[in-house]
Amino acid sequence: MSLTLEKTNVEAQAMQAKKASKKLSLLTTEEKNQALNVLADTLEEKYQDILTANEKDLVRGKEKGFDEAFMDRLSLSKQRIEDFANGLREVAKLEDPTDQTVSSWTLDNGLDVAKVTVPLGVIGMIYEARPNVTVDATGLALKSGNSIILKGGSNAITTNKVIVDVIHSALEKTKIPSEAVQFINTTDRAATQQLFTMKDHVDVLIPRGGGALINAVVNNATVPVLETGVGNCHIYIDKEADTEKALNILINAKTDRPAVCNAAETVIVHKKWLNENKDAFVKALKDHSVAIHGDENIQKIISETILANEEDWANEYLSLDIAVKLVEDLDEAIDHIEKYGTKHSEAIITEDKEVAEVFMKLVDAAALYHNASTRFTDGGALGFGAEIGISTQKLHARGPMGLPALTTVKFMMIGNGQTR
Amino acid sequence: MSLTLEKTNVEAQAMQAKKASKKLSLLTTEEKNQALNVLADTLEEKYQDILTANEKDLVRGKEKGFDEAFMDRLSLSKQRIEDFANGLREVAKLEDPTDQTVSSWTLDNGLDVAKVTVPLGVIGMIYEARPNVTVDATGLALKSGNSIILKGGSNAITTNKVIVDVIHSALEKTKIPSEAVQFINTTDRAATQQLFTMKDHVDVLIPRGGGALINAVVNNATVPVLETGVGNCHIYIDKEADTEKALNILINAKTDRPAVCNAAETVIVHKKWLNENKDAFVKALKDHSVAIHGDENIQKIISETILANEEDWANEYLSLDIAVKLVEDLDEAIDHIEKYGTKHSEAIITEDKEVAEVFMKLVDAAALYHNASTRFTDGGALGFGAEIGISTQKLHARGPMGLPALTTVKFMMIGNGQTR
Repeated sequence: MSLTLEKTNVEAQAMQAKKASKKLSLLTTEEKNQALNVLADTLEEKYQDILTANEKDLVRGKEKGFDEAFMDRLSLSKQRIEDFANGLREVAKLEDPTDQTVSSWTLDNGLDVAKVTVPLGVIGMIYEARPNVTVDATGLALKSGNSIILKGGSNAITTNKVIVDVIHSALEKTKIPSEAVQFINTTDRAATQQLFTMKDHVDVLIPRGGGALINAVVNNATVPVLETGVGNCHIYIDKEADTEKALNILINAKTDRPAVCNAAETVIVHKKWLNENKDAFVKALKDHSVAIHGDENIQKIISETILANEEDWANEYLSLDIAVKLVEDLDEAIDHIEKYGTKHSEAIITEDKEVAEVFMKLVDAAALYHNASTRFTDGGALGFGAEIGISTQKLHARGPMGLPALTTVKFMMIGNGQTR
Repeated sequence: MSLTLEKTNVEAQAMQAKKASKKLSLLTTEEKNQALNVLADTLEEKYQDILTANEKDLVRGKEKGFDEAFMDRLSLSKQRIEDFANGLREVAKLEDPTDQTVSSWTLDNGLDVAKVTVPLGVIGMIYEARPNVTVDATGLALKSGNSIILKGGSNAITTNKVIVDVIHSALEKTKIPSEAVQFINTTDRAATQQLFTMKDHVDVLIPRGGGALINAVVNNATVPVLETGVGNCHIYIDKEADTEKALNILINAKTDRPAVCNAAETVIVHKKWLNENKDAFVKALKDHSVAIHGDENIQKIISETILANEEDWANEYLSLDIAVKLVEDLDEAIDHIEKYGTKHSEAIITEDKEVAEVFMKLVDAAALYHNASTRFTDGGALGFGAEIGISTQKLHARGPMGLPALTTVKFMMIGNGQTR
């Protein structure tokens, strides 16, 4: 019974979103920007409503015994809400990615051809208990002329519901139809499953969160998916690596924010370099409280090594742990990354430019680094402005996805009776 | 037993293709172009081997009683093989889509960032009994630095096998490893099914053929798919349409090549225009032997109408038949296209520019036409050169897909020790 009811609701919401996306596609850049600014102001005005709702999610989270990192992501404050509002104001300032002529030409018969960017239509956003995604994703979707259907983690549902209520009340004062933002207000998994296959009404799904969430979407969806960000990132220290650069980059990539997707999880070390730099290498990791995991080869060289198994190579630690892999040459390093990498961010540290070029050509990933930290794979750090996620797939968009990733193109042909 | 054997074979082929793609990605444009020219010459030299194999497929096709159109697509001649070779020489002349810097900039900390096009890797091409696709797709894949796995229709398997043998013998004389072109030499469907899920070795699947083939791939693949070309295309004749333009375009779009995807399948006619132009409209269609299908409203106006059902609106005829839909206004026309269109090519015929603009903005399709025939949706006709198919999806590539659709990007960052 309840399943049938949910079914009707989610489908009705998706149809409303589709209808609203048509209206949205006819708005001017100014009308969209103005709406984002109204939205920002309204979030700040109603911050107390949001904090009250957030308190309920926090109490429930505490009862469930979630860890500190989880509670930290869930927890809002007046300052964080002001940050959300300022984020929306920044998005308002970014260039409108739609209605841009990518290329245009005229055929010999006089037919004018233009390839023009247009919104995707309806975006289904599936994410974990991070209320900031509710605001950020809405801002990016609306700016790019898309409707959005929000399905956030159930542990933030009270907070998200109130945020979306605030968004709806704000949109009433703007040209953007409030139906352009839909919130799936249930913890029933069946509702999410419906989103996965609603090809007629939803143009793309964007999962954002851990590997389990992303795989659930990729494996069950018939709606196209923009796969985001599991990052099992490697730092390869070549035999010609500069010691100081290598250690600085390694420590930064591992310890700056261990829980994010662009943090390093394995360091691949050339045998020759490790022989020459073993003590400094071990000291740097120890000084930063990083636990070393490795196979028997590494155990022979570094006594404090925890024995690694297949899991250590294949998965993200997202903690102050690192897997150390010893290699004889570049090919062995590339093969290891090919086998275990997630096509996110991979770095080589070397003073040999030719070796770096081969590494960057042959390693298949969204972002390749020569003598720099993998931590730069981020829309903000690379200077794009806000991102909707980091794509680790090859089609449509790769790496940090800003506003252009939320558009597609149309070929627009204007003639005066041309036939073939 | 045989299934296990096949499984091993296809996976081994895909792994060879992946390995070859790495070598291919390091070749220069000149090395690739030279290889394509050698390939072209070798096809012409060995045309007799190909024709002998083709004769076997033709005899079997005749026994199976395939229709004329099918036999025509399957049938080769010395001239057609020369056309294939010239097609390859044209691809050699096109700009290399890889290693192009889409954008580049330097961060304040001195880190150089470049977004550069790179090959996708391994393309799985699944198509019907059209030997031209074997050559065309191979040329486009190799030029863009990709390996290709070919799975053609079983009724052309003898021809395709010999074409691929010729390709392999030609590649032996070039820098391109012959493992870059793999041919699935079986009619066992299980082999194709394996391709669908080989995410580790195959980067994209491109189905090219009828709706059944395309749906089989889209519904069963976990490898990303570039969906191509079912075209249920509409011509909307607005109340402000010029009679001569409308009829010329309608007849061209319907009758020039009725079996192709950019042919018109339904004409949507504004009531006012039909009232004023009924006789000329019916005469034009009759003169070109086009059968009229329509609902009761159309039957009342045009006596020779065959009663249409849901199938008539939803499917391609690919023959000299057209469905006629009567509407009261633009919105009704747009709603009909939204409901039955396949997002391929849609045209409006009107002298009212504002109405045309609204139509082109609101109708969701790869190609929109104002006062021109839908027949122009084609890489050759639009001036791109060869195409690998026409995308009717929104992500990655939309409309005719030329060489750039076979690439992705990498972010390449070069630093001197930058950390975050």
